[in-house]
Amino acid sequence: MGKQDFVSSGNDRLDRQLKFTAEIDQMTAVLRRTMLIDKSRRENDAEHSWHIAVMAMLFEEYAAEPVDIGRVVQMCVVHDLIEIYAGDTFAYDPVGNLDKEERERAAADRLFAMLPPEQGGMIRSLWEEFDAMETADAKYAACMDRLQPFYHNTLTDGHTWAENGTNRAMVEQRMAVIREFMPRVYDWVETNIENGIEKGWLAP
Amino acid sequence: MGKQDFVSSGNDRLDRQLKFTAEIDQMTAVLRRTMLIDKSRRENDAEHSWHIAVMAMLFEEYAAEPVDIGRVVQMCVVHDLIEIYAGDTFAYDPVGNLDKEERERAAADRLFAMLPPEQGGMIRSLWEEFDAMETADAKYAACMDRLQPFYHNTLTDGHTWAENGTNRAMVEQRMAVIREFMPRVYDWVETNIENGIEKGWLAP
Repeated sequence: MGKQDFVSSGNDRLDRQLKFTAEIDQMTAVLRRTMLIDKSRRENDAEHSWHIAVMAMLFEEYAAEPVDIGRVVQMCVVHDLIEIYAGDTFAYDPVGNLDKEERERAAADRLFAMLPPEQGGMIRSLWEEFDAMETADAKYAACMDRLQPFYHNTLTDGHTWAENGTNRAMVEQRMAVIREFMPRVYDWVETNIENGIEKGWLAP
Repeated sequence: MGKQDFVSSGNDRLDRQLKFTAEIDQMTAVLRRTMLIDKSRRENDAEHSWHIAVMAMLFEEYAAEPVDIGRVVQMCVVHDLIEIYAGDTFAYDPVGNLDKEERERAAADRLFAMLPPEQGGMIRSLWEEFDAMETADAKYAACMDRLQPFYHNTLTDGHTWAENGTNRAMVEQRMAVIREFMPRVYDWVETNIENGIEKGWLAP
């Protein structure tokens, strides 16, 4: 943010909340590998986070366990915030994933420290819960996070798969949480994997 | 969406949910007047919706009445969906606002009909509640929706204000819901209005 432009509220707590708000606008500049469905350009983290948040409001009936949608939607909108500093790590990049955890932890330390402690802690907890994929809410949010780019690939001639030489086993591993937590949706995922291989977008 | 690419799940209900998911990706192409804070370009509706959803998680303590954040965040991520068809109407455009209601109602009829009825109805209700600005949740969401572009203006040399010859009365009218529902935040808004006039970004 143009820090020189910021007009203080005279209240340190409100100033911190406002400065954090400006800082996270950088999510609009974190580009992902995924193409927008109209193929005009890659999507960014703000767009992706928004998209999976709306999706979370639609697919609850396929979840294997009860989920709290209001909580999941909050998880969705904050789950990638740390990428402002840590960058987006492509799901199928083995090298980038080696130090992902360390980079993201350092980013979280820096980013969430901008907020009043209990608010930084609250958002950090949601992110950690998402990342651990152990609770029903986190599994469901993770399903949305996997389903969205997968779906974009099916509608953009497998753009990101083809570009990166992705194969069936890699996609199946990434989609495992959907197989476990949303089996009826996974049937559709599987059909699309077959279709992607048939079309030559995905290596067998 | 590239409708020819869509692989059916064999389940009409799931297909509708998936097709709606693809349709709303067009939010990334609905440009607003507001500049991103880094001034690189205008923001789009997906980015704006995401940004105010995260903000809703931060400013609850300033709300005049109790709000349900999980509900408000859902309201935030769907509040502009109808702009996919109705377009973004600039808050300070008197002509565009004349037929805004009619255009948006027609857009809602078309968009929400894509979903299974009870889901279309659920999202439409959230949008209508937001628009009516009568409940505490809707007032709080509306505050975020007004505060975010206002804040961007203060950090981008009043870009959108100056570009459109906006004056103090127009901004005060737009910010009225913040004055009513978040008075402590409005103090900061007021300081920034004064600053904007002083800097020549905003007409007195």
